[in-house]
Amino acid sequence: MYSFKNDYSEGAHPNILHKLMEANLSQQAGYGEDTYSQEAKALIKQQINKPEASVYFLSGGTQTNLIVIASLLRIHEAVISAKTGHIYANETGAIEATGHRVITVETADGKLRIADIAQVLKEYALRPHVVKPKMVYISNSTEIGTIYQKWELEELSAYCRSESLYLFMDGARLGHALTATNNDLTLADLSALTDAFYIGGTKNGALLGEAVVFNRPEIAPEFDYALKQRGALLAKGRLLGIQFLELFKDDLYFNLAAHANQMAQKIALALAEKGYATLTQSTTNQIFPILPNEVISSLSQKYEFYVWKPIDAGHSAVRLITSWATDESKVEEFISDLKRF
Amino acid sequence: MYSFKNDYSEGAHPNILHKLMEANLSQQAGYGEDTYSQEAKALIKQQINKPEASVYFLSGGTQTNLIVIASLLRIHEAVISAKTGHIYANETGAIEATGHRVITVETADGKLRIADIAQVLKEYALRPHVVKPKMVYISNSTEIGTIYQKWELEELSAYCRSESLYLFMDGARLGHALTATNNDLTLADLSALTDAFYIGGTKNGALLGEAVVFNRPEIAPEFDYALKQRGALLAKGRLLGIQFLELFKDDLYFNLAAHANQMAQKIALALAEKGYATLTQSTTNQIFPILPNEVISSLSQKYEFYVWKPIDAGHSAVRLITSWATDESKVEEFISDLKRF
Amino acid sequence: MYSFKNDYSEGAHPNILHKLMEANLSQQAGYGEDTYSQEAKALIKQQINKPEASVYFLSGGTQTNLIVIASLLRIHEAVISAKTGHIYANETGAIEATGHRVITVETADGKLRIADIAQVLKEYALRPHVVKPKMVYISNSTEIGTIYQKWELEELSAYCRSESLYLFMDGARLGHALTATNNDLTLADLSALTDAFYIGGTKNGALLGEAVVFNRPEIAPEFDYALKQRGALLAKGRLLGIQFLELFKDDLYFNLAAHANQMAQKIALALAEKGYATLTQSTTNQIFPILPNEVISSLSQKYEFYVWKPIDAGHSAVRLITSWATDESKVEEFISDLKRF
Amino acid sequence: MYSFKNDYSEGAHPNILHKLMEANLSQQAGYGEDTYSQEAKALIKQQINKPEASVYFLSGGTQTNLIVIASLLRIHEAVISAKTGHIYANETGAIEATGHRVITVETADGKLRIADIAQVLKEYALRPHVVKPKMVYISNSTEIGTIYQKWELEELSAYCRSESLYLFMDGARLGHALTATNNDLTLADLSALTDAFYIGGTKNGALLGEAVVFNRPEIAPEFDYALKQRGALLAKGRLLGIQFLELFKDDLYFNLAAHANQMAQKIALALAEKGYATLTQSTTNQIFPILPNEVISSLSQKYEFYVWKPIDAGHSAVRLITSWATDESKVEEFISDLKRF
Repeated sequence: MYSFKNDYSEGAHPNILHKLMEANLSQQAGYGEDTYSQEAKALIKQQINKPEASVYFLSGGTQTNLIVIASLLRIHEAVISAKTGHIYANETGAIEATGHRVITVETADGKLRIADIAQVLKEYALRPHVVKPKMVYISNSTEIGTIYQKWELEELSAYCRSESLYLFMDGARLGHALTATNNDLTLADLSALTDAFYIGGTKNGALLGEAVVFNRPEIAPEFDYALKQRGALLAKGRLLGIQFLELFKDDLYFNLAAHANQMAQKIALALAEKGYATLTQSTTNQIFPILPNEVISSLSQKYEFYVWKPIDAGHSAVRLITSWATDESKVEEFISDLKRF
Repeated sequence: MYSFKNDYSEGAHPNILHKLMEANLSQQAGYGEDTYSQEAKALIKQQINKPEASVYFLSGGTQTNLIVIASLLRIHEAVISAKTGHIYANETGAIEATGHRVITVETADGKLRIADIAQVLKEYALRPHVVKPKMVYISNSTEIGTIYQKWELEELSAYCRSESLYLFMDGARLGHALTATNNDLTLADLSALTDAFYIGGTKNGALLGEAVVFNRPEIAPEFDYALKQRGALLAKGRLLGIQFLELFKDDLYFNLAAHANQMAQKIALALAEKGYATLTQSTTNQIFPILPNEVISSLSQKYEFYVWKPIDAGHSAVRLITSWATDESKVEEFISDLKRF
Repeated sequence: MYSFKNDYSEGAHPNILHKLMEANLSQQAGYGEDTYSQEAKALIKQQINKPEASVYFLSGGTQTNLIVIASLLRIHEAVISAKTGHIYANETGAIEATGHRVITVETADGKLRIADIAQVLKEYALRPHVVKPKMVYISNSTEIGTIYQKWELEELSAYCRSESLYLFMDGARLGHALTATNNDLTLADLSALTDAFYIGGTKNGALLGEAVVFNRPEIAPEFDYALKQRGALLAKGRLLGIQFLELFKDDLYFNLAAHANQMAQKIALALAEKGYATLTQSTTNQIFPILPNEVISSLSQKYEFYVWKPIDAGHSAVRLITSWATDESKVEEFISDLKRF
Repeated sequence: MYSFKNDYSEGAHPNILHKLMEANLSQQAGYGEDTYSQEAKALIKQQINKPEASVYFLSGGTQTNLIVIASLLRIHEAVISAKTGHIYANETGAIEATGHRVITVETADGKLRIADIAQVLKEYALRPHVVKPKMVYISNSTEIGTIYQKWELEELSAYCRSESLYLFMDGARLGHALTATNNDLTLADLSALTDAFYIGGTKNGALLGEAVVFNRPEIAPEFDYALKQRGALLAKGRLLGIQFLELFKDDLYFNLAAHANQMAQKIALALAEKGYATLTQSTTNQIFPILPNEVISSLSQKYEFYVWKPIDAGHSAVRLITSWATDESKVEEFISDLKRF
């Protein structure tokens, strides 16, 4: 069996493991004060072109989302998300567990637009009987593989500023977004257009790790306390620092993501040639083709993937995910199996 | 400079890194459903001699403490801890952040006794104007290096059961406790005498990782939800599974801890021979000698360690910690430096 | 100006004020241990025909909802509500502030049905990545004036039991539900069919006060702690006891609600005769007629009420609420004003 | 039996009940927007000589404490209190339930001093491993009957400002403090010297009600949301407005408190003449005499009061509380009973 189930099936890029070994016996300060973390943070600030930013390393997406959101919001404030947003759909109420409502919006493509947010603000106007929307949460790439264009993010950013809403981007799959063929955003753009965002390592070659960036550090001047309080401050912070140091050396992070995208898009092309429709217009490493149930059943003999949802009596959408570690020969095999139908 | 500042200055035991490399490209299920984690859990259940227990892997001590406590307590319940307890002294209010009071007791040696708990129950009797004490939190070894004897734990255990209190043991340094020369407890004893405890990896040779054991799994049947909600469920759970698999193979875990203890006790002996008193009676890898300030100042030129607290005008207690990675030649050098005074 | 804006515009029924005066200087135990509260609880348990129930008095609906829900749910559990439910629409995220998600369902009439709940259970199946639905919250009468029929509640009740879901009824306007002309439920039925419900005093003649009933007291054996912790335990609990004692003497509670309903339905009849449609099929004290905007504008000169929502370019729905204190002559005046259009 | 158990044994001052009756059928806006509340707030702002202050009415002390503290603190911040402070000793962990630690200080007289706070700041310096102290909570009068002198409050205030700590005064028994014979503070002083304080109604003649004052309204600009979210916003806010309007008319509030103090001090004088010591130096309406156990036993036949704590084999301290409603003839009877021993 070969798995297209997710982008965290394998371990880490070998460079990371080698560096962990090489650095293993160097004595380092704990809790993120190690030299590797310091260097990695400097490197990221340089790449986003924002020396005044503050950068923190955390272990995973849910942890990052909940700590960032709990740190920025006051008790009566809420966050707006697409209904497909990870914080609403996949995190076991992590945000609500910190005391805040996630206000959701139905979307066609997993992306929020000004009209969506404006509608929420209208519905949440009856102060003080409703929560106060104070943050907009977006994912790039989204949970269904789509990405934001620069003009879209510029519009959202300007609107959020005009309405005093924080704009926070979940970048669990940020590498995949920024290396998509239709992408026109850079890390520096994200830094200019959002209040905070994070660079996902777990789904792009790290053992674990997300780098959260506060572009306006004054909104979270005491984030270190929150990290420790919520159990996110690793004693051996070096583990995160070393990984981001490797990932941001020689564009490894982007190369890994580009590979993942290419693998998925190669499959997508084959599917399109076969005439299969897709549920979402993904240009990244997650694709959602709609297949006849017997094809799904047959492919399931050799490949692991999620059956996403039934479409009609004879068809279902499936989710195929590729990663930095996806073996191109397996992709080719999959395509050739596909072509047999 | 050589550091005796803590037991998480280095990376991981090489066996762990080798196994991470070896297993790196094996595709595994996410979120702790990987085969390594399954094997490691089975191994632990065997070593504690409790097949019905449930075992979960988490990243660090604060995270483990807060999730276990938040999962077991109802909203009006509280946990009792020594004032030196990690949950009170070093975790940025992590327990209170989940809504629960930590009721503290002053102790001479960091250990709780029946009389301490009985006194708390008496002070918290005026229902419903006070919280209800429902859990006893102890650390073994304690934050100041002492350990529980079997008879002490048996007494505590019986008392807690009679008073319907959960007994939860923080084992961030459990290896050091169980390999201390004066220890008479086994993993199986802990499993028989506590409701839950954890086996610390971070401070004993892992990159990160704590294995929490519910000896009566019926008290936390849905702990997996809590893990996810609080951001503790690693996508690549294999990282934790592989480490515990290595640590519990061929007694590595205990051998590493024993080394740490021996290194600390070697220093302790040298200090005693020099006539220096110690703040606590530690038999583990943390020692707290009281030294003349000029000795401290001189040692600080070559070694890193915490100055714990001032004792009188001319003396302070310092904390020296050794680990699985402590270099015996550095210990000898430290001792020889010490002897020069 | 005469107000049809809500059912808490006036003070309390005079019987209550007289009794407060009469009892004023009697010395009583604090925190709900007074004899009035004890008597009132006994009276309620008798009327619901459930001597083993436990009854507590609180100050208002939001407070009651949040404390009941926070007491019953574990950290990873969620409550299901109609999107119009008070806990979702009108309580400033009070439930989320206790850490729990409110899962909402769109409904036509503010009432939940088995299919709604079954659909939620299906959507929240991917343990542990989603919260666990554990409670069903319904309001009777609903926030839009409709009521549950006995067979509907019996079905819901049986389903909730089969799925191990708590069934909790918000009775902020319970009197109005139970005295609606189409009602076939009794207090004893509610006690038999729900796990907990409350009897709203604030919107039916009390200064403040809700009586929450746990029909299975074993699900909340320590609710008194929660009351105190959340600031709901009044030092002068007598204030609540005296009010419920008066309300449940000689059916005052039901008589007051019946009056409110009659006043609203009298207006509803007049509106129907004029040919105006209504947004919801209310048989209680809240009605939602759809009126031409110029009629609304004209009525607004003399009467206060909410403009609920725009329907089309020329029409809007308004909300008219009557209460125990509504003056029948004002109702007649309103109707006669209406007839002039 | 006559009760000296607390100051909330009776109902409300008759002026309040009369006004409730008189205003009963006046239609008013809900949720504190009624004219009585508006007038009462204006009256209070005038009496504290701070037109820019913001004033809110809540139901009780625990509720007020928890909402004020939860509104002002960020997630990693803590409040400092005397160990006898109501928020620590009597509120079922209400503050911790909002996520914040209460850091306690042992005091001789229930009052905090600069040295106490400075010591806490020193102990909580190891950022980010400990919570950040951000608020000082004091009670006036304290839970053991003592009061702050103006110079003491001035010192505390200056220190708190220099350390960026909020200074919040619990005034559940503020009337008793401000009318004590040794008091030299005014409401205007409190407004100048604290960031927030409240004026307790429940223990001084109201049915329920506390008026919280933010002297710098910019620290809690959205407090109305918090009130609603925590279940503190009464639908019939008039109930609170009317009471404070009456209490602050013609100095009723102060006259009631002065009566309570005089009654307690009359007993205190008699006790002193008999040679009995007291546990605390109270000048207000709570006194803590140390009596022979047989005297306690005998008095308990006719009077209710708390036995506060055992002192030695033959003596215990008791707590006697008087109120606005205490009958002077009962006080005289108590004294004469006392004299018989």
